[in-house]
This record gives sequence, structure tokens and C-alpha cells, in this order.
Amino acid sequence: MRRVTGVATCTVLDMMHFFARPFAELAPEIELLTPDQVTDPEAVAFVLTFKPADDAFAPYPNLHAVFSVGAGVDAILDCPSLPDVPVFRVEDPDQALQMAGFAAFHVLWHHRRMGDFLNAQSKGEWARRVGDQSPTLRRIGVMGFGMMGQAIAQALVALGYPVTVLSRSLPADPLPGVMHMTTAAIGDFLAGTDILINVLPLTPETTGILNADTFARLPKGAALIQIGRGGHLVEGDLMAALDSGQLSGASLDVFETEPLPKDSPLWSHPQVFVTPHVASTPMHSAVVANVQRGLASLDL
Amino acid sequence: MRRVTGVATCTVLDMMHFFARPFAELAPEIELLTPDQVTDPEAVAFVLTFKPADDAFAPYPNLHAVFSVGAGVDAILDCPSLPDVPVFRVEDPDQALQMAGFAAFHVLWHHRRMGDFLNAQSKGEWARRVGDQSPTLRRIGVMGFGMMGQAIAQALVALGYPVTVLSRSLPADPLPGVMHMTTAAIGDFLAGTDILINVLPLTPETTGILNADTFARLPKGAALIQIGRGGHLVEGDLMAALDSGQLSGASLDVFETEPLPKDSPLWSHPQVFVTPHVASTPMHSAVVANVQRGLASLDL
Repeated sequence: MRRVTGVATCTVLDMMHFFARPFAELAPEIELLTPDQVTDPEAVAFVLTFKPADDAFAPYPNLHAVFSVGAGVDAILDCPSLPDVPVFRVEDPDQALQMAGFAAFHVLWHHRRMGDFLNAQSKGEWARRVGDQSPTLRRIGVMGFGMMGQAIAQALVALGYPVTVLSRSLPADPLPGVMHMTTAAIGDFLAGTDILINVLPLTPETTGILNADTFARLPKGAALIQIGRGGHLVEGDLMAALDSGQLSGASLDVFETEPLPKDSPLWSHPQVFVTPHVASTPMHSAVVANVQRGLASLDL
Repeated sequence: MRRVTGVATCTVLDMMHFFARPFAELAPEIELLTPDQVTDPEAVAFVLTFKPADDAFAPYPNLHAVFSVGAGVDAILDCPSLPDVPVFRVEDPDQALQMAGFAAFHVLWHHRRMGDFLNAQSKGEWARRVGDQSPTLRRIGVMGFGMMGQAIAQALVALGYPVTVLSRSLPADPLPGVMHMTTAAIGDFLAGTDILINVLPLTPETTGILNADTFARLPKGAALIQIGRGGHLVEGDLMAALDSGQLSGASLDVFETEPLPKDSPLWSHPQVFVTPHVASTPMHSAVVANVQRGLASLDL
């Protein structure tokens, strides 16, 4: 059997901890090494990474492909040593469902004000409040229509929420029950969104898109679920929008700096639910399958 | 236009507060009175209630129907003054979706251990934990297959969870993606359930069904979502199962005594999420439409 050699390297994840065993078990035709283990840099055909160091790709003159172990590839595309080779993001339907569940949880958290019940419980108070439970009372806006956005939209439709998806162009196959709008109509999209879910990829056009201007175009009291990339959010603008009442709450899973610094005011803001970048992770088997598929597509 | 007269009476809900206006606006052919307003008891054709007083039906000799404003009718069926007339429960697809959202929230709460993230946030701790997010890792068991159970099962399938529904007989139209089991196989059902959702009606057979024996047949570390009726749960058995580790957590929305008494140990149990009977309420318009449909079916 012909073996293909790849290097696993990342500044934030212990790649071998996660992937040594899945590759050994599922893809014996692939030799996965750490940079330290490489004896012949010319034999390295691919790199598996998530956030590469600036010089991560430099030692390998014969790279044919780079694979992200996540859905996002922005840190790879920004890497100064990236050669001109295909960059594959992982495509994992299971991860999209993880994301859908996480988004659905936070839609319910904001719509049903579940935090109020936890607060009341801590005081032993029966704080009954009914009449606002219908999912038809909250319009969901999903920014981004990749695999994640689609799974989120479908799940929320199944839960009875009116869902609008924003994407650059209208999809050839619109999702049943979902309203589609293009970025040309972002003003109308935001004006009709009570709970905004961000799953955009991070690009120069989308960096900082969750800013004061965007928040001001939402209806007063809207909520934000930020599960895209840290670079999408202007954290100071979010704090101001929460403090003015323009936004009623936010769920944040990704941050400009991770781990979120100890002194960030987000930690203690009563209307912010902070999670430590856990909305989803690819299944190990999906990462392996993705590398196998990508290598096959390049005849490697 | 012929007018039909009904009486709205309840020991726990201020019926006129909720329903006077919807009936006036949506059903001008129906005269809805409080017991105090009735001048001719023989003209009262129906009673609208949720938890009637023991003698609630006694004053009206010509009743043709009783309507519940909720999905549950157990308190009505138990009422000593109930005459031999049809009892209608409200059927409201919107309410079923409210229930599905509430159940989905609590499935995610337990599966993703969202409470741990809230605790970590309160201490400013970045408690990242990944690898257990796949919905395929939690088997959902739904007890009860009325309108609520169906909506819950469908929503959780849309979120990628393996779902088994327990019902007395196998449905003629099984739901796509859902596994069905009958109560004859309840042992197998419980043994294969990591998160148990109860939406059974309260009957003599189901009273106290959430007891030590049931909990012992679940896999160790299972979680309970109790959104049926308070009488289903033996609260002491639940506390014991949580304290022994047999159950890892519980979400409770309904209680034997409501409001939950101040001195209940459930309030402060760290693995219990108490909500004050808010999983769902019928839309007012659905209650009105249900009464109209019911009266029409009786040619009234």
C-alpha cells in the first residue's frame, strides 16, 4: 500500500492527542507526523492544522494540500507561509447538527428567558410567566448559509420559529419553510430579526460585521447568538448595545482572544452567556474521511 | 345569531383575565360568563375550566360539554360533580411546538452540560471541554405520543438525536426517523434511554410512573425531563436517584403541589432545573377555536 505523509501542527490544539489514534485506526495508508518527527521534509504531502504558526508550512517544499480540522479556514488563509495549494475545510454533517443544537438551545434561552427561571430558582421563587411561549413570537435571522447555517435553519423551522437566512446569493435549492434574503437586503433582514445567529465565515468583508451599526438596525431588545468567529464581533459595541437596551442579551461562544481574558467585562455581564468555544467540533472520523477524500481528489 | 352560553371557572387561573377578550373578539356567538354572572343556570351549555372546584359543575343541569383550557384533563375527570358529558382537551399545534422547544432546550442543557458553563462563567473560568457534542451520543426516550410527544420527537430528530417513543400501541403512521416501542417493552425502552422525556397523560396507570424502579432501569447517569403532570413523579425517589448518581440531572416543570412549596428540597438541588409550569400554554385563539369545534360537533 502506498503511504502518504502528512504533518499535524497547530498553535492551539494538541493535534496528536486528538488525531493520532483516529488516523492510525481509520487511515493506515496515511502517515501522520508531528513536525519533530519529520526526517524527510520533501516527503510531506499535506499539513493538517487549525491555527498554524506563521512559518508552519515553510519546511515542506512539496505540499499538495492543507486540511483544516475545523469548519473555519481563516487562520490558515491568513498564514504568511501558506503555499499555493488547495485548502480544505472539514465538512461534517454531525458537526452541523451539533451547531444546530447549540443554536436552538440559545434561541430558547433568550426567547423563553430561561436565565430568569434559574435566578428565581436560586431564591426559591415560583416566577410563573406565560403567554409568550409561542415560537411564532420570535423571528430568527441566520447570517451564513453553509452547512452550519442550513442545519440551524432546518432545526429552528422544526421548532416552529420563523427563520430567515441571509446569504450572498439566493440558493438554487431553498430550504422548505425558510425565507431567503441576499446581503443586498441586509437592512430589511436585520429589521425583521429578533434573534440574530451569526455563522458567517471570517473574511475581510465580514470582519467586525457584528458592530454598533448592525445592532442599531435590529429591533430594540433583539438578542445575538455569536457562533461564527471571534473576529466578527466588536466586543465594545456589543457591551454598549446591551447597556443601552438595544440588545436584550447575547450568547457568545467565540472571541477575538481565546481563552477570553480574565479581565474581560463579558464574563460578568448579566445578559451575556459565555461558553468556551464549544458549539461544535468535528468528529474525528469526519476529519480523517475529509483528508482521505481530499487526497483522493488530488490523486494522492 | 343563536348564542350559546358557557361558564368559565377554575381554582387556579383567572379565566376571564385570559379568555374574556379572545371569546368576545373571536366567538361573538358564545356568551362566556363567570359563575357569579349566571342568572339562568339551566341555560348554561358548557363549562370552560382547567382545575375545577369539587362542586363546579353542580349548578348547571343542562351541560352538554366541558372544555379544558389545557392539554391535561385529569383534574376535570377527577371532579366529583362532573356529569356524563364529553370532556374536550385543547388541541393546539402551536402549544405542541412550545413543548418541543422546551424539551429541546433541556435535552441540550443536560447533554451539553450547559450549567457547568454558567458556573465556570460566574468564576471567570474558560472551562473548555470538547468531543462529547455529537447528538448521536445521547439516546432520547419520549414517554407519550400525543400531539406533544410527536412534536418533541420530530424536533429532536431534526437536531440529530436518536429518538425512541413509547406508546401503548404502535402508531399507524410512524414518524420518520423515530423508533417506536410499546409499553410492553418498557424495560428495553428505559435501558436504552439516556435522556427521558415524560409527556404522558395522568391516569391511574401512569400516576407515580417516575419512581425508583423506573429510574433504576435507566442507564446510570441518565437525565429526566418532566413536562407531564406533577402526579407522575415521586419526588422523594427522584432526590434519592440524583443523590446516588443513578440520575445525573433533572428538569422539572410540573409538581405534585404548585406553586412548589418554599421548603421543597428540589429548589436548591444543584442537579435540578426547576421551572414554574411554563413549558407551554395554549394560544388563546386555539382555546376559542377548540370550544367552537367542540360545540359544532355536538350540534350546539
